[in-house]
Amino acid sequence: MTRYDTISFLSDFGHDDEFVGVVHSVIRELAPHVTVIDLTHAIPPFDVRSGALALARAVQYVARGIVLAVVDPGVGTDRRAVAIEVGGGAGVFVGPDNGLLASAVAMAGGAERAVALTNAVYQLPAPGPTFAGRDIFGPAAAHLANGVPLEELGELVEPHTLLPGVLPLTRVEDDRLVGEVLWIDRFGNAQLNVDPDEIAGYGSAVLLRFNEQVRSARRATTYGAIGRGEVGLVVDSYGLVSICLDRQSAATELGLHTGDEVSLEQGEDRRPGVSSPVTVRLGGPIT
Amino acid sequence: MTRYDTISFLSDFGHDDEFVGVVHSVIRELAPHVTVIDLTHAIPPFDVRSGALALARAVQYVARGIVLAVVDPGVGTDRRAVAIEVGGGAGVFVGPDNGLLASAVAMAGGAERAVALTNAVYQLPAPGPTFAGRDIFGPAAAHLANGVPLEELGELVEPHTLLPGVLPLTRVEDDRLVGEVLWIDRFGNAQLNVDPDEIAGYGSAVLLRFNEQVRSARRATTYGAIGRGEVGLVVDSYGLVSICLDRQSAATELGLHTGDEVSLEQGEDRRPGVSSPVTVRLGGPIT
Amino acid sequence: MTRYDTISFLSDFGHDDEFVGVVHSVIRELAPHVTVIDLTHAIPPFDVRSGALALARAVQYVARGIVLAVVDPGVGTDRRAVAIEVGGGAGVFVGPDNGLLASAVAMAGGAERAVALTNAVYQLPAPGPTFAGRDIFGPAAAHLANGVPLEELGELVEPHTLLPGVLPLTRVEDDRLVGEVLWIDRFGNAQLNVDPDEIAGYGSAVLLRFNEQVRSARRATTYGAIGRGEVGLVVDSYGLVSICLDRQSAATELGLHTGDEVSLEQGEDRRPGVSSPVTVRLGGPIT
Repeated sequence: MTRYDTISFLSDFGHDDEFVGVVHSVIRELAPHVTVIDLTHAIPPFDVRSGALALARAVQYVARGIVLAVVDPGVGTDRRAVAIEVGGGAGVFVGPDNGLLASAVAMAGGAERAVALTNAVYQLPAPGPTFAGRDIFGPAAAHLANGVPLEELGELVEPHTLLPGVLPLTRVEDDRLVGEVLWIDRFGNAQLNVDPDEIAGYGSAVLLRFNEQVRSARRATTYGAIGRGEVGLVVDSYGLVSICLDRQSAATELGLHTGDEVSLEQGEDRRPGVSSPVTVRLGGPIT
Repeated sequence: MTRYDTISFLSDFGHDDEFVGVVHSVIRELAPHVTVIDLTHAIPPFDVRSGALALARAVQYVARGIVLAVVDPGVGTDRRAVAIEVGGGAGVFVGPDNGLLASAVAMAGGAERAVALTNAVYQLPAPGPTFAGRDIFGPAAAHLANGVPLEELGELVEPHTLLPGVLPLTRVEDDRLVGEVLWIDRFGNAQLNVDPDEIAGYGSAVLLRFNEQVRSARRATTYGAIGRGEVGLVVDSYGLVSICLDRQSAATELGLHTGDEVSLEQGEDRRPGVSSPVTVRLGGPIT
Repeated sequence: MTRYDTISFLSDFGHDDEFVGVVHSVIRELAPHVTVIDLTHAIPPFDVRSGALALARAVQYVARGIVLAVVDPGVGTDRRAVAIEVGGGAGVFVGPDNGLLASAVAMAGGAERAVALTNAVYQLPAPGPTFAGRDIFGPAAAHLANGVPLEELGELVEPHTLLPGVLPLTRVEDDRLVGEVLWIDRFGNAQLNVDPDEIAGYGSAVLLRFNEQVRSARRATTYGAIGRGEVGLVVDSYGLVSICLDRQSAATELGLHTGDEVSLEQGEDRRPGVSSPVTVRLGGPIT
């Protein structure tokens, strides 16, 4: 009796090689009833943090079933390969125990049961030890979809021993909120680890400091509402504050990169009739 | 009762982020019986013209059902989100009303009924207003596939109010046909907006003018029939005249880009025994 | 009565255009029950050798059914389009007869029956002669999946007349094994055409010569076991010897490219207590 119909698949395999296709093939052969959804395979090689963030962004939309995620710089070392059950068995996450899955698992309600994928019966024999997506993770996902019980795949491990994720937190310094660029998307928008609630009191003008620059930005509800040449702060489609330009790449124009520290403080609203209730201490030129 | 089994999906989302995967996920969750065919997601960001041309090229081959197309620089502005029925309900196009769908809709027989996608019941609640593919267009496609009637998705709009496409037309100047490069494909072939009928009287030798260059080209029925170093004019797989080299990129070698104007006129056939019935007025060096 | 449920698809079409999506669409329309698995479409344009190698790597994992492979610089010339049956009909390879399929067919047990795809009844009418994936190969794969007998697709051809593949062989020169870089993967590992058995007698230290460099390398069972700054020789996930660094691109760091000649000979094991039984003749500086 099959149990899951969908495997959602994320990796750093890229599309230049046949890696993704081979994992699809292995799943197709083992569990032909399954539909595999490719979340993305463009995570930079070995970049566990980027993979974890992409998975956390996607997970609230992922179809019920299995999530297969492989960004695995430690393949072949003693990092564990795991399967983690959430939601009373509504879903299972399969991947390396290196923090990649942690934030998404937490967003899905937290790990309830977990196993280390050590039972070779549910793995492919490998000529070399290095393609775990094909030989260990993909087959585990397929067998789970076929109804193989979690505990058959290896020994149970305590969920609290799983490696936690490292989502960066904001901090408050004086009257500034200090955050970080989580992600530059294809359109050049720079998503921050900042919840709109954290800057709710700042009004429509916000002063940004990053990479020795100081920039005035304005809150906007859509990209189109950002004026030409203006820096906008938009609550993006994932609910986080992001730095944007209208139809231009904010990342390119402002020199922003993933991981850059950005501080936000209340800015001076220059629209006529709006008073500016805060004294801005400047650390550099205002643009 | 499900109504459509296939959603053909085109966008400018690229594959670097999880955007495409998230839209697949949303459709999978709402309409698990559907197969999603990715036409392409490599339309340059915000390039509605390129998207419209790619969709027009593909549409004659697209499987019956729903076409979901998203290239949407005006997301969040007052541009309408629409669903357009064609062929007595044989197909529905879903996307922004910005000209992206127009040529393909025309090739599919023309718009018969259309709605603006305003019924929030068939949309996902969004933390921010900016990912219409995930929150509006993808869900609309899925609900249509599930059999939700078109008119349930929003208010009916008059098809003649839909924004038309802007496929460039050729024009005749003196004895030249003036066209334009529609598309550079992966192999560097430069497709023109020229139907072979328009140059049927030119014989096998054609003189091309573009970007201050004048080049002799020769009609050929296959790429392989183009001689080394020779410029070929081939009726491409979509039935349009394209400028080609054999196993080389014509675009790179000749410096051609999308949107470049190219004029064609009857050339001098230099093969022995073939008379040249036209006087060529040259505007630059012949290569 | 349908016969095959899976078509595994490899090409040099890339993802920048809608080529792949159009072939999917054609198959979907002709054989809606089929699942198409994309092995890869990133084979460099016209690079039959790269395509043949990728197909050979993937074929042992490919799901039962049809393999559709298109890397076809000779499209429109007199190269044959073929379908090749293997394994008593367990699988069929569809593609150009230019060596692309040969190694994979051999690994799948060898060609048993083959036809040239000449029956226009099972092809799409084409406005131009140039998109065989869409008009000839894709439809052939779909019709085979639907149960159309192989011999219906065109005239039978003798399997021994099919163009052979050209997998490069190693050779022994003095006490060196001379091989070649088959493939640089996304992570920068350089796969050689060298079976581990061929260097079984070399011990853990191996001297590599390539592109006027001489490098000491050490056999390792995992990437993680390679020390920082050390060159490793790992039996990769396909069972071939590859040149690797830990979490760095060996190709970039060492200047290795596909097709580069690499010679291997027994190196000097510098670990204490291990004698070095071979005199190394040096042709350049040791790093």
